[in-house]
Amino acid sequence: MTVTESPELAPPPDRLPPMDTAARLPRLRDRLDDAGCDGVVVSDLTNVRYLTGFTGSAGLVLVSADRTVFVTDGRYRDRSAEELAAAGVEADIHIVAAGPDEAIASAAADGGVLRLGLEADAVTWTQQRRWSSELFSTGELVATSGLVEELRLVKDAGEVARIRSACAIADAALEKVRHRLADEPTEADFAALLDATMRELGASDVSFETIVASGPNGAKPHHTPSERVITDGDLVVIDFGALVDGYHSDMTRTVAVGDVGAERIRMLDVVLAAQDAGVRAVTAGVDAADVDKACREVIEEAGWGEAFLHSTGHGVGLHIHEEPRVGARSAATLDAGQVVTVEPGVYLTGLGGVRIEDTVLVTDGGCDRLTLAPKDPILA
Amino acid sequence: MTVTESPELAPPPDRLPPMDTAARLPRLRDRLDDAGCDGVVVSDLTNVRYLTGFTGSAGLVLVSADRTVFVTDGRYRDRSAEELAAAGVEADIHIVAAGPDEAIASAAADGGVLRLGLEADAVTWTQQRRWSSELFSTGELVATSGLVEELRLVKDAGEVARIRSACAIADAALEKVRHRLADEPTEADFAALLDATMRELGASDVSFETIVASGPNGAKPHHTPSERVITDGDLVVIDFGALVDGYHSDMTRTVAVGDVGAERIRMLDVVLAAQDAGVRAVTAGVDAADVDKACREVIEEAGWGEAFLHSTGHGVGLHIHEEPRVGARSAATLDAGQVVTVEPGVYLTGLGGVRIEDTVLVTDGGCDRLTLAPKDPILA
Repeated sequence: MTVTESPELAPPPDRLPPMDTAARLPRLRDRLDDAGCDGVVVSDLTNVRYLTGFTGSAGLVLVSADRTVFVTDGRYRDRSAEELAAAGVEADIHIVAAGPDEAIASAAADGGVLRLGLEADAVTWTQQRRWSSELFSTGELVATSGLVEELRLVKDAGEVARIRSACAIADAALEKVRHRLADEPTEADFAALLDATMRELGASDVSFETIVASGPNGAKPHHTPSERVITDGDLVVIDFGALVDGYHSDMTRTVAVGDVGAERIRMLDVVLAAQDAGVRAVTAGVDAADVDKACREVIEEAGWGEAFLHSTGHGVGLHIHEEPRVGARSAATLDAGQVVTVEPGVYLTGLGGVRIEDTVLVTDGGCDRLTLAPKDPILA
Repeated sequence: MTVTESPELAPPPDRLPPMDTAARLPRLRDRLDDAGCDGVVVSDLTNVRYLTGFTGSAGLVLVSADRTVFVTDGRYRDRSAEELAAAGVEADIHIVAAGPDEAIASAAADGGVLRLGLEADAVTWTQQRRWSSELFSTGELVATSGLVEELRLVKDAGEVARIRSACAIADAALEKVRHRLADEPTEADFAALLDATMRELGASDVSFETIVASGPNGAKPHHTPSERVITDGDLVVIDFGALVDGYHSDMTRTVAVGDVGAERIRMLDVVLAAQDAGVRAVTAGVDAADVDKACREVIEEAGWGEAFLHSTGHGVGLHIHEEPRVGARSAATLDAGQVVTVEPGVYLTGLGGVRIEDTVLVTDGGCDRLTLAPKDPILA
């Protein structure tokens, strides 16, 4: 059996601080009028989970002024009742053998909904055509966007605790295995070792497919671990995270194996300074674009503006990538309780890449860094 | 580092038999006219992978009579060129900093496409609204459905080899760890051990979240492994698979731990007979609904028709669940080269559940069973 060596890193869900799930449906209800509808069908499964605590793979919720109707199928008969009750969510649960959309449409019509919101970012064109022609042809369909996602922006204490636990697992896993980079593993083997270590430490899964990009592969920001052997003289970009009760962490460290030469050391120094500038720019009330600018200016001054191929960061929560985006074109203003990454990088064909990334909690007056692994790039 | 004990189970991709990726774009091209369009935007990432070999997380393809345009962003500059070349796919590759949809729309307009297909099952309502109002407002948008998915139905020899390898890994992993069920592990620990063993044996990942459902939890077909301790007298439903170079396997075995009593033994016997009847019904030319019927009749005769809560099976390939569906309402006819599951089950609240599942390759005259783990339910 798997041995959990540091169980305190990831307490089981029932010993993590509770989330205030039951408070979320009323907040959604308050937003319906502004969205131009008197009911909304929540079909994005992450949003369904956020609102109800349901973690299965098939569930829909109708939310109107006076109704919450949850529809799932026979596979989730018992689990839906258990999870909604555990979250303190009151809903009419309908178990259907087929046609969950029909069941929700009937509930909407029975409840007198005339303008029905559909999550336009989650509903496919095929589904919208069917709602329009068959399921709700007598009422008005309203395209909604971000209704639940905007509620998800600011994390409650229970959510922060889960992300913090996921970050701590990633920190501890890297600490345990980092020295193995000196043993000339392949990228794929080192990634597998890191992933297995996160699971041993209590992660329910990895947060996303771990990136281990060594030597010239580092020039690809989203390289998939390969059979390349990590060798003396390599920069190794390691981008990874853990999953705890549905919540993600995200961290990147770049390690120098042996003597990497002056140009690569300069890359490390520049990105470290850029990342530090970015983290110091994070505070409640700042424009996300200004955090991007703080990072980008340091890299541009070093002459590598073109080699910073992506934006600075993104929100982290039930998704590994969610709002707010932290980039030059972002219109977002950061608020206390949001969790974002700061992850500048420089990618030079031939030389390789450097990226350094933290997940941070935005606070009034600054931020609380949740990923705490040392950034010293030199492999002892 | 991870020790691969049986490397022959999962040869690295470059030693697996090649897939005929380059043959796929011409077959798609041949279907455009029937779909009512003279070009199609393929945006579903699995379909993009199938057509081009690209495995990144952001890529779009425009396919028209005389053009293949692939659009991705700077993160995938090198990888897209490498993967398309390795697959023998010729395309104009456009690397864009932002606005991949705009780049594809321009390419379509430049190429004289007047009726542009969008994958209506993959494009969101939000995206379709944007295509209609901004990106392709002068031409005609056509909702396509299943254009590429229908090509994916019949697997080529390279695809079958990947699925067979994934099945062999699952077989070997269960063989290695099955006896540990006698040690009173929790469901979650046994699932973690099985998952780690599949990775050790060469799986790039698990195929889906492993189900270990013991005792009364077995009555939930899609139970998530819990902290429940597996105990004498339990039926344990184990549903799991491995991933090899993007291809999945899917297998369920039900194990009886200790003395489970006469009623549960009868459940095992009935489901085993039903599953055997289903597998024997599979052959090229049969209606998928008749395979479902073959399983269902055995269970109905035993008086448990109502307790077989789901359909009999589904296609397996780049997705764990894909076409053809094998159920009472399925309109599909099975063809040689398709890969499907046969997985009847009986779920009785209190008593628990039994499900037995194989992944099989449909052949002329029968099928080739790819999952070969013994079905003897008794724990030695």
